[in-house]
Amino acid sequence: MNPNRAAVEEAARFFREHDRFLVLSHVNPDGDATGSALGVVLMLEQLGKEYVVVNEGETPLKFDFLPRFDRLRNLRKQPLTEMFEAVIAVDCADESRMGDVRPLFASGAAVLNIDHHPTNDMFGTVNLVRPEAAATAEILFEVAEEAGIAFNEELALCIYTGLLTDTGGFRYSNTTPRVMEIAARLLTYGVKPGEVAERCLEEITFAHVKILRRALQTLQLSHQNLVASICVSVDDFAEAEAKREDAGGLVNYCRNIEGVEVGVSFVESEPGIVKVSMRARDRVDVSAVAKQLGGGGHAKASGCTVKGTIAEAKQKVWDVLEPALGVKHDE
Amino acid sequence: MNPNRAAVEEAARFFREHDRFLVLSHVNPDGDATGSALGVVLMLEQLGKEYVVVNEGETPLKFDFLPRFDRLRNLRKQPLTEMFEAVIAVDCADESRMGDVRPLFASGAAVLNIDHHPTNDMFGTVNLVRPEAAATAEILFEVAEEAGIAFNEELALCIYTGLLTDTGGFRYSNTTPRVMEIAARLLTYGVKPGEVAERCLEEITFAHVKILRRALQTLQLSHQNLVASICVSVDDFAEAEAKREDAGGLVNYCRNIEGVEVGVSFVESEPGIVKVSMRARDRVDVSAVAKQLGGGGHAKASGCTVKGTIAEAKQKVWDVLEPALGVKHDE
Repeated sequence: MNPNRAAVEEAARFFREHDRFLVLSHVNPDGDATGSALGVVLMLEQLGKEYVVVNEGETPLKFDFLPRFDRLRNLRKQPLTEMFEAVIAVDCADESRMGDVRPLFASGAAVLNIDHHPTNDMFGTVNLVRPEAAATAEILFEVAEEAGIAFNEELALCIYTGLLTDTGGFRYSNTTPRVMEIAARLLTYGVKPGEVAERCLEEITFAHVKILRRALQTLQLSHQNLVASICVSVDDFAEAEAKREDAGGLVNYCRNIEGVEVGVSFVESEPGIVKVSMRARDRVDVSAVAKQLGGGGHAKASGCTVKGTIAEAKQKVWDVLEPALGVKHDE
Repeated sequence: MNPNRAAVEEAARFFREHDRFLVLSHVNPDGDATGSALGVVLMLEQLGKEYVVVNEGETPLKFDFLPRFDRLRNLRKQPLTEMFEAVIAVDCADESRMGDVRPLFASGAAVLNIDHHPTNDMFGTVNLVRPEAAATAEILFEVAEEAGIAFNEELALCIYTGLLTDTGGFRYSNTTPRVMEIAARLLTYGVKPGEVAERCLEEITFAHVKILRRALQTLQLSHQNLVASICVSVDDFAEAEAKREDAGGLVNYCRNIEGVEVGVSFVESEPGIVKVSMRARDRVDVSAVAKQLGGGGHAKASGCTVKGTIAEAKQKVWDVLEPALGVKHDE
């Protein structure tokens, strides 16, 4: 038998064999972590099981459209003393990703580890780890089918949310035919793709708009219009009353401009510390640029942290980028 | 037999029965029009047929990643005197949508009309019109299967582009399970979903960025933060050296702000003429608001044209919107 199939069966058996579960995902949970954790919860309910679903901290309110969102327990606000004999961890590559949740495991607890990160260290007593899956939710879909769970709109919504968010709205290269096939199945249960995308991918904060407004004033084309860059200073954050995460995605405005090969954002997270994000089209491998500056990432999306002012950071990036691009600065 | 099935068979027969074809879509072609027209071209090539593929005007260069893009003939630049006995029109609701292409039809020409617009007036001698399809490309997929065409990456790319663009990146309510199933099939031929989305949905012009930069200075929350609005004046267009289409999508920045129920953009297309676009979440049917001002659209996306200054247009919209929203202006 296909070892993957055996692991799916073992995972389905895990759901049936225990009665009371601790369900958890990773710190700073995203759509796949939250969708998968709540998907597990719905499966457990259908099997007549008891559970507590937790996160070390708060789950972003943008996911409050998911069923059983109100059952997600923030351990910082509502600590728990109970110890659990059975644990289901989703979307966690290792125990450190869980945050301070490990103390709730009873000694010798049975732990089901469902994940798709290639770096997963197999911390479970049962490990269903498939790096080829686009999302943990994709694996959970297989487990639910194997466990004979009846799909309905709520469960479909949880799994769809994981697929949608971890594939960047079906745009990343992990968007396989299998992802689309599962999405097709989930839509038959009544998931409204526009509403999920609106909540998970399109919603922005007013603080983001204010940061964007200030940042766009700095947007500049350089290097024969092959590079577009944008800057945000600590003063911008203060004046926009914005948090670090409100500046997310600014680099995309640069990369998305037609004709631009490399988009770069320079975000001064604190005085003297500049976070550099780079997005490339085809001509340059920006992970090589980032590595030379102590960072890392992928060929088309990478980043690094540079000490100094924004102007100094810019110069450092140009010094490394120019040979890769084959074009000198021409402001 | 299912009448739809019979129409698909008749369309497939149309491809086989003729030898030389005129292929066309609609004026100002979008991704579905262009993807479907070039999909037809690839099918004809596979069947060993001759063709000329035309458009009244220019096809946007953003679609130049599609195979046979260089075969698209712009009739304004390269007029044609040949008359065609066989015509395949895709994504055209009626002959007026074709632009000035009708004179190329021979008297008594056989015309295959493949379309998904509910308003299609059945102008063809063979009509394959399915309003329930998300895109003309979805229907073309069925025809290609029926005609025994071998799918490959190029044909899959054309059809995928139509599906992706006409569903707004698999987000509009027309994103059916069938759309996703077909997308899954197309990905198996090597379509790279990220690259298509980048070209069709994400790419922006620098003029758009410049318009956005100016427009964001005007972004305002009002009506207890339930309404967000943004304005672009004729001066903004001049100073950004931007065209009307560079202001597209501005209203989405308004609607996407968390907590906002209605986003409105006021775009002064010429002095004294203001194009109003509205996007709603749940509380208000903006098509009713637009209708009262002489416009129209859908419950969640509508628009109208108002004479006067931007300030006057704003007042007119607030006057109609406020009773619908149940909240007064509070700037």
